[in-house]
Amino acid sequence: MQRFALIGAGFIGSIHARNLAANPDVDFSLVYDVDQESAESLAHAHGARAARSLDEVFDSRSIDAVFIASSTNTHAANLRRAAASGIAALVEKPIDIDLRQARDTVAAVERAGIRAMVNFNRRFDRDHSRLKALVEAGNLGPLYLLQLTSRGPALPPLDYLKVSGGQMRDQTVHFFDLARWIHGSDPQEVFVAGAALTDPRVAQLGDVDTSAATLRFASGALAQIDSVRHTGYGYDERIEVLGADGMAESGRLRAGNITVFRGAHSRADGLHVNWFERVQPTYALALQGFVDALERDTDVPVPLRDGLKAQAIAEAATRSLSSGRSERIDYGSES
Amino acid sequence: MQRFALIGAGFIGSIHARNLAANPDVDFSLVYDVDQESAESLAHAHGARAARSLDEVFDSRSIDAVFIASSTNTHAANLRRAAASGIAALVEKPIDIDLRQARDTVAAVERAGIRAMVNFNRRFDRDHSRLKALVEAGNLGPLYLLQLTSRGPALPPLDYLKVSGGQMRDQTVHFFDLARWIHGSDPQEVFVAGAALTDPRVAQLGDVDTSAATLRFASGALAQIDSVRHTGYGYDERIEVLGADGMAESGRLRAGNITVFRGAHSRADGLHVNWFERVQPTYALALQGFVDALERDTDVPVPLRDGLKAQAIAEAATRSLSSGRSERIDYGSES
Amino acid sequence: MQRFALIGAGFIGSIHARNLAANPDVDFSLVYDVDQESAESLAHAHGARAARSLDEVFDSRSIDAVFIASSTNTHAANLRRAAASGIAALVEKPIDIDLRQARDTVAAVERAGIRAMVNFNRRFDRDHSRLKALVEAGNLGPLYLLQLTSRGPALPPLDYLKVSGGQMRDQTVHFFDLARWIHGSDPQEVFVAGAALTDPRVAQLGDVDTSAATLRFASGALAQIDSVRHTGYGYDERIEVLGADGMAESGRLRAGNITVFRGAHSRADGLHVNWFERVQPTYALALQGFVDALERDTDVPVPLRDGLKAQAIAEAATRSLSSGRSERIDYGSES
Amino acid sequence: MQRFALIGAGFIGSIHARNLAANPDVDFSLVYDVDQESAESLAHAHGARAARSLDEVFDSRSIDAVFIASSTNTHAANLRRAAASGIAALVEKPIDIDLRQARDTVAAVERAGIRAMVNFNRRFDRDHSRLKALVEAGNLGPLYLLQLTSRGPALPPLDYLKVSGGQMRDQTVHFFDLARWIHGSDPQEVFVAGAALTDPRVAQLGDVDTSAATLRFASGALAQIDSVRHTGYGYDERIEVLGADGMAESGRLRAGNITVFRGAHSRADGLHVNWFERVQPTYALALQGFVDALERDTDVPVPLRDGLKAQAIAEAATRSLSSGRSERIDYGSES
Repeated sequence: MQRFALIGAGFIGSIHARNLAANPDVDFSLVYDVDQESAESLAHAHGARAARSLDEVFDSRSIDAVFIASSTNTHAANLRRAAASGIAALVEKPIDIDLRQARDTVAAVERAGIRAMVNFNRRFDRDHSRLKALVEAGNLGPLYLLQLTSRGPALPPLDYLKVSGGQMRDQTVHFFDLARWIHGSDPQEVFVAGAALTDPRVAQLGDVDTSAATLRFASGALAQIDSVRHTGYGYDERIEVLGADGMAESGRLRAGNITVFRGAHSRADGLHVNWFERVQPTYALALQGFVDALERDTDVPVPLRDGLKAQAIAEAATRSLSSGRSERIDYGSES
Repeated sequence: MQRFALIGAGFIGSIHARNLAANPDVDFSLVYDVDQESAESLAHAHGARAARSLDEVFDSRSIDAVFIASSTNTHAANLRRAAASGIAALVEKPIDIDLRQARDTVAAVERAGIRAMVNFNRRFDRDHSRLKALVEAGNLGPLYLLQLTSRGPALPPLDYLKVSGGQMRDQTVHFFDLARWIHGSDPQEVFVAGAALTDPRVAQLGDVDTSAATLRFASGALAQIDSVRHTGYGYDERIEVLGADGMAESGRLRAGNITVFRGAHSRADGLHVNWFERVQPTYALALQGFVDALERDTDVPVPLRDGLKAQAIAEAATRSLSSGRSERIDYGSES
Repeated sequence: MQRFALIGAGFIGSIHARNLAANPDVDFSLVYDVDQESAESLAHAHGARAARSLDEVFDSRSIDAVFIASSTNTHAANLRRAAASGIAALVEKPIDIDLRQARDTVAAVERAGIRAMVNFNRRFDRDHSRLKALVEAGNLGPLYLLQLTSRGPALPPLDYLKVSGGQMRDQTVHFFDLARWIHGSDPQEVFVAGAALTDPRVAQLGDVDTSAATLRFASGALAQIDSVRHTGYGYDERIEVLGADGMAESGRLRAGNITVFRGAHSRADGLHVNWFERVQPTYALALQGFVDALERDTDVPVPLRDGLKAQAIAEAATRSLSSGRSERIDYGSES
Repeated sequence: MQRFALIGAGFIGSIHARNLAANPDVDFSLVYDVDQESAESLAHAHGARAARSLDEVFDSRSIDAVFIASSTNTHAANLRRAAASGIAALVEKPIDIDLRQARDTVAAVERAGIRAMVNFNRRFDRDHSRLKALVEAGNLGPLYLLQLTSRGPALPPLDYLKVSGGQMRDQTVHFFDLARWIHGSDPQEVFVAGAALTDPRVAQLGDVDTSAATLRFASGALAQIDSVRHTGYGYDERIEVLGADGMAESGRLRAGNITVFRGAHSRADGLHVNWFERVQPTYALALQGFVDALERDTDVPVPLRDGLKAQAIAEAATRSLSSGRSERIDYGSES
């Protein structure tokens, strides 16, 4: 049984709280939020207690693990405190929006030797994880080509886009991680073409809303990732992997299974309304993966370093958007 | 907030316990089971208390509603006690395996005036409920034909079959209910052809494991239901409705969405392993429907009388199996 | 190379003419029709010659085989002339609308010893024929249940229905044949419930437009066939076979493969507009099967006797519609 | 009625011969091949005559149109002769493997004023052509992203690859045309990453067998094309178009519609064995489009200039493969 504190009582924090409460291997003890009232309300709903300060959270006598779901600019500091206190940490991505800061933080955490995991929850998707298993088992032979589709239903608010770091760092980064993870190696180069097509203000921010990325792995294998901010038909996520011995697809997920035949057409249920409906079940599974590692004293399923690598790809991708050429990815000296 | 007691701490009771605990409108208070230890263990896991006697359960000062998930032969008695105590009741099907007893029980409950619902949880299936809504909205026009598929993965244990009342009363009855409910009226006649094909001992029990039922509604509309005990490919449930203006299908549900292309074929995830995996989400939704009726003081979504009607169809269906002819369905004087 | 005469230059005759002309093993020589002008026009279009009389057709010095696609009431007489002339015959179904006449005709043809085939072209469907092969190879194990769907897009003209012999003899008969053929044995009993739902004039004709048939085979296996005259969504044909070791489906065939995602739904191409679009490719394949038998001197793929058996089932099915009970099927003394 | 000569009696010529013979608006008169015997044999099979010389073919007193299906290096010369003789021409792609030669040829043909069409038959695909119609009708709104998949079942013979001009000019060129055509405008830039993954000899030829191309249109819209020489699971072709108002897909085409459910999986028919099975129906439709233009005296559906444009994209794509950057596409002064 692992005693958990949760930092962050916002929307995503409330999802994590529910999963912490439901998990039989977790003793959900503390909730902290800069807004004390939110912390208390969320703690109350799940039989936990609101912490009045971070000192209470980072006390290894009462807490074994901390779930860091606070705002992005606090991730690194909270990770360092967990490391200093010898408390295991599960942290929302990114570790830090600045890759150098993120690298320093990870190095510090690794020196401290705590178990720490970055929450790339999409890896725990029912279908994606089985696709990875197929690849790992060699069922498809050596890989030739991956195709990943990442499409959101509607442009996020401009205020959000302003601080997001751009489409590569905010949206595509999760699919850079999925591509790395499924392929089982680090891509060496990335090319991205992008455009601001949905709203002129996206271009004014220097950002894009529609892009096509191409990754090249050391083996020569390629990956294509299309990232779109606005589909008008819901949240569209799909991965296809082609290898020497066959192709496997983790298909679009529909929100229901009703089909109506009428006249010359049939009409079926479309995709999930938004990303959250699609990925919701992955949060509990990611948490379980982390808890299992603690309970069994094994490696966490997604080391922090994987977060750095996805970020490194996003940095090169961002450069490619303006250079018009394939950019080498710099994984830093730690790689 | 409704204070609930749960009677029955077996497998299905444990599912209901989890849903009672998770429901924000429910104060999950008591668990009763003839096996006191099971009751205590289940109560403990969800912050409830084990009742030492049924007297404790049927006390309207501490309890607003009871979930009757005990063995079938106790349903009627527990319902009557709920009625006598003025406690609302959600009861697993059937109300009583003897239709006459079931009718008397329902009459008594109705006289008492408590809110009582029979747990036809398949009506709360994400897709089936939307199929019903389509029909009700008139999208398909007057109905011509319904097709329902009810197929289990493997023959249940012989000991279970012995006391099950036969395929019509045990398995097909749920689809008789779905057919009635979706069509929105009572079928008048039923014909069934059946055979024992999977195991000779099924025939020795006088039962069948494979059957084809045809229902006729007063409007002339027809329904076909195929019921199979052993598929070898998982749990297969499917409903199709054809009307003057089109056809709608609540399709087979697959357990995953991975497709692998190789050579001349593709291989995709099959159906759920068993009925439970398929219908699991419906339990929480059915409970919510009952709780909503209590909270809003409205009619329950599935009145007990609907349980009687499905049973009446199963009785006529059982007669047809041996008569070789279409049998009229007798809904009794209460209808 | 087989020298062919075609009797009948109507719509279906013109389809057969095209296939005869395109077939490299066929020398398409003669066309006969009671309407001499139709015969000449069709013959001209395909480099054949119009015959002025049936005597010209039934001359074994110039003709090896005859394709009988004239009106139903001439099938038996033409078959007998082919038998008398020693000319092989491919005949449209039914052999005769009167089962006794049909039986006498078949007996006469068999005594004469010519190769003769009844044109159950649906057996040559790309998918159905592979479904049959799967069953025959034992891939599904002993069969439990067949489900066949036979649905036309719109009610045929009343004038056609008047002389059609009723839904069982006109429409369902082809699926009685498919069920027999796929199962590989003769059903013993048939129950049918039917109704006239689309147009009151159907009932006035004593006919039905919507029906549910249940067949029982000697092994105990069952088959369900739903027959519908009016879908409003095109031509819907589908066969599903369940056995001890799995289930196989020859699915609905769509007229195209475009899917449009928009808002909360996707819209896909529906089914074929009419039966002809769906079954069109089967005519050439059925012809090829007949020609191959002639060229290789082997048995024809669909003996006339199979036509009698399907008719016998249709007769019992028609009786069941009014008796309300399962009727034994009488295959006659020749069976 | 158009009098046709066919030049080229090889495999693809024999397909065109069959379509010429079957077309009611075509009088299929002459076949020419450098191998006189092939010409005679093919002519005989379809009631045409073998020409002994090209002079016989290019005689406008007896011939209205010529179908140029001879070897690639003769296309341009034959086109020029057709132009000189005032005979309409349908020519297999490419017009000439050398883009400058091709441009000069097209200029000459245009000056002569004959009707001439390049045979981009994939545009006539049942589904692709309807996808184009959807886009043209504005159903998807302004376009954001196209995705095209072009995958062959197995590496072509090395001897073929040696003279093919490379994957861009040989394989992807058809999808450059489809992208242009569906988008309705000329892409401005192209980036391609490629690798030789299936066979080391491909790399020795300086060619690639797996590539990911990204096109950028003037509007900012993007297209991704993946081209693969070896799938191991048949011929895989697929087009997806995303616009501001929705997404439409011309999906993979399966070779059959049988699905078998067994244990935890279902197995379905895979894709067509090879490109020919997939695209075969398009040849007759492309021919019909050309014949219609002649009969109605309207523009041909695919002007020669479209062939030049697809080639121009392939040239820039080939440059990008080695430059590692997005290359501008030069459509020449004629554009």
